[in-house]
Amino acid sequence: MRRAKDAARSIGLLSDAQKREALQAIASAIAGAADEIIAANADDLRRGRDAGLSEALQDRLSLDESRVAALAAAVREISVLPDPVGRVLDRRTLPNGVALTKVSVPFGVVGAIYEARPNVTVDITALALRSGNAVVLRGGSAAASSNAAIVSVMQQALASVGVDPGAIQTVDPFGRDGARALMTARGLVDVLVPRGSADLIRTVVAESTVPVIETGAGVVHIVLDETAPLEWARDIVVNAKVQRPSVCNAVETVLIHRAAADRLVPAVVEALVSNGVTVHGDETILELAGQGVPATEEDWEAEYLSLDVAMRVVDDLDAALDHIRRYSTQHTESIITMNEANAARFTAEVDSAVVMVNASTRFTDGGEFGFGAEVGISTQKLHARGPMGLAELTSAKWIARGAGQVRG
Amino acid sequence: MRRAKDAARSIGLLSDAQKREALQAIASAIAGAADEIIAANADDLRRGRDAGLSEALQDRLSLDESRVAALAAAVREISVLPDPVGRVLDRRTLPNGVALTKVSVPFGVVGAIYEARPNVTVDITALALRSGNAVVLRGGSAAASSNAAIVSVMQQALASVGVDPGAIQTVDPFGRDGARALMTARGLVDVLVPRGSADLIRTVVAESTVPVIETGAGVVHIVLDETAPLEWARDIVVNAKVQRPSVCNAVETVLIHRAAADRLVPAVVEALVSNGVTVHGDETILELAGQGVPATEEDWEAEYLSLDVAMRVVDDLDAALDHIRRYSTQHTESIITMNEANAARFTAEVDSAVVMVNASTRFTDGGEFGFGAEVGISTQKLHARGPMGLAELTSAKWIARGAGQVRG
Repeated sequence: MRRAKDAARSIGLLSDAQKREALQAIASAIAGAADEIIAANADDLRRGRDAGLSEALQDRLSLDESRVAALAAAVREISVLPDPVGRVLDRRTLPNGVALTKVSVPFGVVGAIYEARPNVTVDITALALRSGNAVVLRGGSAAASSNAAIVSVMQQALASVGVDPGAIQTVDPFGRDGARALMTARGLVDVLVPRGSADLIRTVVAESTVPVIETGAGVVHIVLDETAPLEWARDIVVNAKVQRPSVCNAVETVLIHRAAADRLVPAVVEALVSNGVTVHGDETILELAGQGVPATEEDWEAEYLSLDVAMRVVDDLDAALDHIRRYSTQHTESIITMNEANAARFTAEVDSAVVMVNASTRFTDGGEFGFGAEVGISTQKLHARGPMGLAELTSAKWIARGAGQVRG
Repeated sequence: MRRAKDAARSIGLLSDAQKREALQAIASAIAGAADEIIAANADDLRRGRDAGLSEALQDRLSLDESRVAALAAAVREISVLPDPVGRVLDRRTLPNGVALTKVSVPFGVVGAIYEARPNVTVDITALALRSGNAVVLRGGSAAASSNAAIVSVMQQALASVGVDPGAIQTVDPFGRDGARALMTARGLVDVLVPRGSADLIRTVVAESTVPVIETGAGVVHIVLDETAPLEWARDIVVNAKVQRPSVCNAVETVLIHRAAADRLVPAVVEALVSNGVTVHGDETILELAGQGVPATEEDWEAEYLSLDVAMRVVDDLDAALDHIRRYSTQHTESIITMNEANAARFTAEVDSAVVMVNASTRFTDGGEFGFGAEVGISTQKLHARGPMGLAELTSAKWIARGAGQVRG
């Protein structure tokens, strides 16, 4: 951590061109070291199989030639994004002539804690360096060999272009002690980003004294209001559930206004089922649709991340807002409506990072928002909310220029 | 906390005019209840004297008629500041026509933990309500009677204008358990602001699972560079030390370039001493000035908050930057110089909330910056840095408006 803090000094002063060059060196080095990285990854996979790692986790862990090429490509994409450092955020001149400028600056040292995903090692390092930060990584034991190989390749790449390789640090060799040291390195690490399961995030939030940006779970809702056009309702619900069910912006619960239930439920459920979705419905849903399985309390709380969806008929917009207040994780909610007053109430009263009218929740994404890269999707309210791009990896500094002024 | 969270819903939806009216009702109610508040304060003072509370703390705790009038006046001033909610922070239209707007929104519930200062009870409540937030207060046992009286008056004032009085909550009746509950109320409290001693802030940072904005200590430096004009050097150092020594933006250490020491030290030290300041100097300082007391390692770390200052001769700008890196609390540093290259290096390399050239560090202040009110001065890098105004008590929300768009 001390090493990263020292390196942060020089990294923070690199020019736009130098940071771009450093990232391009990393991209080339990763592409050039594909064999070495894949061999290290094979070690992890062997250990994972012996330890009974699930198929899904093995898949996330596994690297082949095309995945290593994708890692290098991602770094190249990040390298050409605009420099987030040095933007003028505010400017004011005091009555006495002192000129104030608020400019964006790197945080210094960004920490990341994640699990069994070697691609995060590359992504978060590239994002941190592009924004002028050093990085301290904790990638977890399941990917230890892969991450060690990748980190070493990236460090050598930095050194090859005259950038302090200390800017990339890992605490993986120190296991759980390393993770604990990272979480409590207040003063050395400026911000910590956990990426992974709800459990991992909870632990980091509870144990960290370093400020954390929570990238959270998504129990995402779509409300089909009384006036929802059938086609929009059906297309948006199917898209939000089916296009990529495993991600946090996929819809998990659909709430239908009672006055629109007869009109909407049969067609929406039919469209979902024909796309392989299991509908967990309340009694009215099951009656009207003639298919589906009964929903229980657990279904309203579920972040399925699978081809399952909960559906419930609500009496009115107030009941929908109550349900959302109770079960939402404040990630993304959308209402399908032609009623402008209801749209306005929904956007004002729903307290989520992204609140939508007549659009698919799948748009909550740094790429879709035009940020070029995504650090994660913040579901907290401090510093960053919703999709985080490079700008969210910067802090600010006030620069004051005077000519001898003193306070009266 | 649950009560504050419920109240936050309606508070967050109040119009600018309604929030202004609520604060004006609070101001009038405080002014009208001066006798009651002063009587409650007398209880606290009696207990404080019996418990051996220091004179300085008794003074901070004590309320008389003019201080109660000042509390009411502060609320009135905050009431007429521009509404920080509903500002458009970003706007973009996706290629598919979905319109995105990022607007400022209240946090929801703001927590505050502070010590023996009834004025913070009023200030932080007014700031929180003006920015559409509910507030949960922990003011400490020394001011328990005063705070209870003030909270009750403010709650009644809200009720009198039809605003939910639940928006102002205190955990003081629950003592330390109350403080602990506040620090761990993640999901109910959105942000926690500790105000007070370094010890208090450390405890809150260590024990909170709620996101904290640290308002920190100031070991503030002024560097007198080789080219510093004598008059600026002397006037700025004296102003920064003497004008109000007890506050965090007062200078604590002055570093003097060796090549300017003969020229600057005698006059600067003489001006300080004639203003009642004790100079803790290194050997060269004491020799050149012919007065002062020897500085030890502890002096470089000291936040005196008194008429004391540490002074040290350094070989060059690099040595000054090294000293600052080691001892600064990253609050405010200023350089006095006519050398533009050194000014540029200083503003680029010093990693503090406010970095100044040729101005007094006393300008680091929400009022001086033109914010109208000050929540505190953030020395952390997440969310807010430097003086915090009402805008720093808001978060953001993305609102997306579509016409049936789905992700391809």
